[in-house]
Amino acid sequence: MTDHSTGLQIRSLIRPEGVLELSLVSVETPAPGPDEVVVRVEAAPLNPSDMGLLFGGADMTTAKAGGTPDKPVVTAQLPPAALRAMAARVGQSLPVGNEGAGVVVDAGTSPAAQELLGKTVAVLGGAMYSQYRTLKVGQCLLLPPGTTPEQGASCFVNPLTALGMTETMRREGHTALVHTAAASNLGQMLQKLCIEDGIPLVNIVRSQQQAGILRSIGATYVCDTSSPTFMDDLVEAVAATGATLAFDAIGGGRLAGQILVAMEIAANRNSTGYSRYGSTVHKQVYIYGSLDPGPTEFTRAFGTSWGIGGWLLTPFLQKAGPEAAQAMRERVALEITTTFASSYTKVVSLREALDLEEIAIYQTRATGTKYLINPNKGSGGS
Amino acid sequence: MTDHSTGLQIRSLIRPEGVLELSLVSVETPAPGPDEVVVRVEAAPLNPSDMGLLFGGADMTTAKAGGTPDKPVVTAQLPPAALRAMAARVGQSLPVGNEGAGVVVDAGTSPAAQELLGKTVAVLGGAMYSQYRTLKVGQCLLLPPGTTPEQGASCFVNPLTALGMTETMRREGHTALVHTAAASNLGQMLQKLCIEDGIPLVNIVRSQQQAGILRSIGATYVCDTSSPTFMDDLVEAVAATGATLAFDAIGGGRLAGQILVAMEIAANRNSTGYSRYGSTVHKQVYIYGSLDPGPTEFTRAFGTSWGIGGWLLTPFLQKAGPEAAQAMRERVALEITTTFASSYTKVVSLREALDLEEIAIYQTRATGTKYLINPNKGSGGS
Repeated sequence: MTDHSTGLQIRSLIRPEGVLELSLVSVETPAPGPDEVVVRVEAAPLNPSDMGLLFGGADMTTAKAGGTPDKPVVTAQLPPAALRAMAARVGQSLPVGNEGAGVVVDAGTSPAAQELLGKTVAVLGGAMYSQYRTLKVGQCLLLPPGTTPEQGASCFVNPLTALGMTETMRREGHTALVHTAAASNLGQMLQKLCIEDGIPLVNIVRSQQQAGILRSIGATYVCDTSSPTFMDDLVEAVAATGATLAFDAIGGGRLAGQILVAMEIAANRNSTGYSRYGSTVHKQVYIYGSLDPGPTEFTRAFGTSWGIGGWLLTPFLQKAGPEAAQAMRERVALEITTTFASSYTKVVSLREALDLEEIAIYQTRATGTKYLINPNKGSGGS
Repeated sequence: MTDHSTGLQIRSLIRPEGVLELSLVSVETPAPGPDEVVVRVEAAPLNPSDMGLLFGGADMTTAKAGGTPDKPVVTAQLPPAALRAMAARVGQSLPVGNEGAGVVVDAGTSPAAQELLGKTVAVLGGAMYSQYRTLKVGQCLLLPPGTTPEQGASCFVNPLTALGMTETMRREGHTALVHTAAASNLGQMLQKLCIEDGIPLVNIVRSQQQAGILRSIGATYVCDTSSPTFMDDLVEAVAATGATLAFDAIGGGRLAGQILVAMEIAANRNSTGYSRYGSTVHKQVYIYGSLDPGPTEFTRAFGTSWGIGGWLLTPFLQKAGPEAAQAMRERVALEITTTFASSYTKVVSLREALDLEEIAIYQTRATGTKYLINPNKGSGGS
């Protein structure tokens, strides 16, 4: 077993003058309490939400490399608006990395902790871009035997988001879904989940290549915003599925409103007579991402029974309650190599994650470009 | 008693070629069934929602007068987009007028119907721009003795909307309100109701003159969009009241988003530490009108706990249930000359309501310009 008393960790700091500074620091690993374990982190994905915290709104085209080869430092400028938005975190050196997986290399005295020793676990623990993390037993999701840390790295954010979408659909009385940016890792996962659970899903993508990705995993309804027949295609797909709930990862622009218009047209097809207030069917779009950070714009051509709102996993899980959340986590663990499998284009070390060339690639968030950090890559850990 | 076997009624028709036609038709008054009464309508307001049905999106600057002095006909052109939106009503001659009040001049055989004979009642009956209406007893709200039809004309749309707003606030867990276009008849009513019920209310208006109207009836928080300090004023008022729910009559433009931004800034004032997802307080704007029919635009600078949606009285009352709705109606009847009093700038007959000069005034929906139709004006009815 390697020495795990200290380990490296990625930090993100915004200086008052509007400079982002990314660095590696060496931190001590707290000794585990009775009900705690030490996890050697071997896989942690770079999710869009992680990049929000990592880059803090900085303009990464201004990024400069500094520091030493062992302890690289990256600096970049924040536009004034971004600096204002980040006021509450200025001056704090923040660890990053929502989720990841690794091997339990030390354990407290309790039987529950001891039982995890040597096992591979997934964790939604924060600060996962670290070599070692001391965590409560209750934070660890035990993976089925034979599951690798890479396979288990993304057990929470995307799988629970996909399950949160179908569960929100059921709880709010809808029976089918629309999803945008649908060729993403999450989008493919949602499509697999919907096939398994028999939920009609309308996928919105922006190219024929992305449409092909979804069709290859069994998607029935794929609408391409780059097609001249997009709105007609969307109306037909929404009418065929009866979808009245959409999850939108894009946020900016006119797409959220277009989805509501398509839902209204589909709803009115089956109605008889004129209602000056539009269809009485409630049509809802939840914006859960911000791939387009620009303003959201819509014409209110969809009656009065509609809503647009924010959606975030954590408040959803709190509303769902601990039992429902635990059931979702257990399903994810069972299906982590099938329904909820993720794929990555590259595995990088902590140092490589701060390499300007790598940043230039992974920060684009382009479909099919997803990085995984292995904080113990090359350290002989596993 | 005058002959009420037939009476005049305003009709709105959209022809397939995109022409709106307003006219007066003579209709028979159905004889009342056992549980019905005949109401001689003496007061019916021209609410914004009535004008939506009356004008059907036609461009009233193109209006032309025709017909005869006794049976005037007004025609106007619909822009192509409006014609598409009105497809479902093309070719149907529709009566207009959501609400009104009058005197019961005939009654069916049941005791409940007989008891209303000679009484003044308010009705949400549709087709109220008619001289006579045969209605179910259950549709009639008996007004307190001494209440005139003019005083009782607006018992439903504005009073129940104001009560629906405060009731929605309670049901959804908010404790204060923001209201736009707040100097309107409805806005003044809402301010009086909030004072009586002890609900903090932030009024948004667009001139100092409108601010003065609200202050004169006791408003504490009035923010004027024409002031250079508007956003600062709004943040302060929202922070002082703790308002996290707004009702917006304007719809188009950036105001709905500005309200959410103000709520987010106010919510973050009391929070400690940085949350990358913004405040966890749910912030909601309901759009219930469309004074600005243009697109709605917002930058999502208010975290993830927010919603923008449509709000309409009828679905709200259905959700609230018959008992709650009846309690609201009874409160309105009791306070119709105080909290829920409306005022009008002019009383017109059915013929005068189709006069081009009158239309040019009342269709602007400007604050302080509200018309009342007395379908029996000059007919010696009362």
